[in-house]
Amino acid sequence: MSHVYAVIMAGGVGSRFWPKSRERTPKQFLDILGGGSMIQQTVRRLESLIPPMNTLVVTNIFHQDLLRRELPFLPSENLLVEPVGRNTAPCIGLAALWVHRMDPNGVMVVLPSDHMIRDEAEFLRKITTAVDVAEQSRGLLTIGIAPTHPETGYGYIQFDESAEHNPYTDKGVFRVKTFAEKPIIETAERFLASGDFLWNSGMFVWRADVILKEIGIHLPELYANLEEVKLTLTTPAYRATLEQAFGKIKGISIDYGVMERASNVFVVRGDFGWSDVGSWDEVARLSNGSPDGNASKGTVILRDVSGSYVDAGSKVVAAIGVEDLIIIATDSAVLVCKKGRSQEVKEIVDYLRRKQMNEHI
Amino acid sequence: MSHVYAVIMAGGVGSRFWPKSRERTPKQFLDILGGGSMIQQTVRRLESLIPPMNTLVVTNIFHQDLLRRELPFLPSENLLVEPVGRNTAPCIGLAALWVHRMDPNGVMVVLPSDHMIRDEAEFLRKITTAVDVAEQSRGLLTIGIAPTHPETGYGYIQFDESAEHNPYTDKGVFRVKTFAEKPIIETAERFLASGDFLWNSGMFVWRADVILKEIGIHLPELYANLEEVKLTLTTPAYRATLEQAFGKIKGISIDYGVMERASNVFVVRGDFGWSDVGSWDEVARLSNGSPDGNASKGTVILRDVSGSYVDAGSKVVAAIGVEDLIIIATDSAVLVCKKGRSQEVKEIVDYLRRKQMNEHI
Repeated sequence: MSHVYAVIMAGGVGSRFWPKSRERTPKQFLDILGGGSMIQQTVRRLESLIPPMNTLVVTNIFHQDLLRRELPFLPSENLLVEPVGRNTAPCIGLAALWVHRMDPNGVMVVLPSDHMIRDEAEFLRKITTAVDVAEQSRGLLTIGIAPTHPETGYGYIQFDESAEHNPYTDKGVFRVKTFAEKPIIETAERFLASGDFLWNSGMFVWRADVILKEIGIHLPELYANLEEVKLTLTTPAYRATLEQAFGKIKGISIDYGVMERASNVFVVRGDFGWSDVGSWDEVARLSNGSPDGNASKGTVILRDVSGSYVDAGSKVVAAIGVEDLIIIATDSAVLVCKKGRSQEVKEIVDYLRRKQMNEHI
Repeated sequence: MSHVYAVIMAGGVGSRFWPKSRERTPKQFLDILGGGSMIQQTVRRLESLIPPMNTLVVTNIFHQDLLRRELPFLPSENLLVEPVGRNTAPCIGLAALWVHRMDPNGVMVVLPSDHMIRDEAEFLRKITTAVDVAEQSRGLLTIGIAPTHPETGYGYIQFDESAEHNPYTDKGVFRVKTFAEKPIIETAERFLASGDFLWNSGMFVWRADVILKEIGIHLPELYANLEEVKLTLTTPAYRATLEQAFGKIKGISIDYGVMERASNVFVVRGDFGWSDVGSWDEVARLSNGSPDGNASKGTVILRDVSGSYVDAGSKVVAAIGVEDLIIIATDSAVLVCKKGRSQEVKEIVDYLRRKQMNEHI
């Protein structure tokens, strides 16, 4: 599929994996679940479908060097550097300019850089389906995940099972009715019970010219700025024009800016063991535990410990008589967190920031 | 009191303070409660009574260099090095030989190197009393601590309050009836209720010639070996003779070998905020906590944490939503232990030893 391009969004700077993630090495650069850094795994699992030559990675000025080291096989011109983060719509718009220039019929597979996928073969089948439908329908495709539990940490997509105005239902591709924000637990339970809601995975498939046209309709200001950048794409003025454009435009997500407003939107129903690996709690859930519910990485000694996740880094960690803890040790910091409360890790990072303890963030 | 000598026993190799204590740096070399290493504090708190010139420290071959660095003001000949640890009786016997040689009327104040004493003035008063009575009575004096709770981690000393055969009751010095091993909790409660039991602190005061005579009576084999060493004290043969002697003698404690068998034994009742600082739990108890019962050393961030003791070493430690934990971070290891279970730390060290993870012990 030489006209298919991967666009991997790697500009995240999250603090939810402190102390393992730092501002200099956010989650996508960490080997959290084993098997290489998350961005390496993201690129590698696409390889049979999309070669590195057709893989673009969008990052920020702080992480471009690290990214080159992580992905040495990536042609250096495939690294797109945003002068400043402006959420997903400008990021995707910029990538669309490049893909469209490389191939006017190019199809983009837009993926976050830091998600986990267990069943890679099934994932690739769904991507292939999405590419087919994106080409046939000239629509906007998103991947929705069959929910396994009433998760409150994800957005949801409601789909329409009927075949009306939709020739793709037999492929598991449906018209989107609505996008729903992260729900409260009661709503999440209702979504799960209804059977017509999927998790919003943040993965998109479309032709570059289609998404640019839709940005033109729904985000005209962004479109105008992208047009300016487009004129300089391979000229020495590119960097300065990009900087000026991104300086002017507002941050907005592709979901809110385009997907919720466009009409020709489809969702591919996927079921391939996906997670956004959004917290230490999620890592603990995803890690294969022993019968006592413990899981660990590194040199860990547990004595009467249950339900706990321990990442010892290069240290040795010993625990005695505790339960349901998350323990993360790095060279300069240690986190001990009750399970179920790892979302509060970002408050720790906020505290370190307020106290200007910059060596720890 | 120029004829008074301190004999500080610093040969301990305990593992109860892992990961902070290591085989190379056992507890007496650690600054566990602040204010310098425990052995520095032990020497310093005696200073007004016994100058460094009269202070002997008994250690082993592994720690002599560290000890010299910790106590640079100590004359190097005051460091007695045991070729091999043989418990307290041989250690004290060896020190007695040296004290007796330096001063035939010398009185020894024998102290462990790793205990905490809060009220130093009161401690010195009791030592002074013990020295006086040791000289007048030619008896064996021990310091007993007025118990504050039914501790099962200490041995006990039962004393006789009557003034029969005892002219020193008005000084708070009593005849010893029995020494009791570490009791079970019910027995400890009975001891506490009875009012005539004291904690055995392992501190002793006696004339050097008196303890040597008592060793001669109750441990004749040890005495015979000490006699051989005595002949070589300041000769080049000393080291070899000592090695030979310690190679032959059996390990035995002064309590079991002499104190429990001798007749002229007194106890000075002391009440000066003493602890043997025997575990991380004890450190946690001794540390001044905040209203939520937490106490910490180093850079520690606590979020909804109570009843916990955290020593961050040179790292930053963050804890979220936990209670009653002991968290100790060092450069190479982390301990997370439920309060009340820190005696199990030695099982961790045993495990590391079995697995030959020598870099961690």
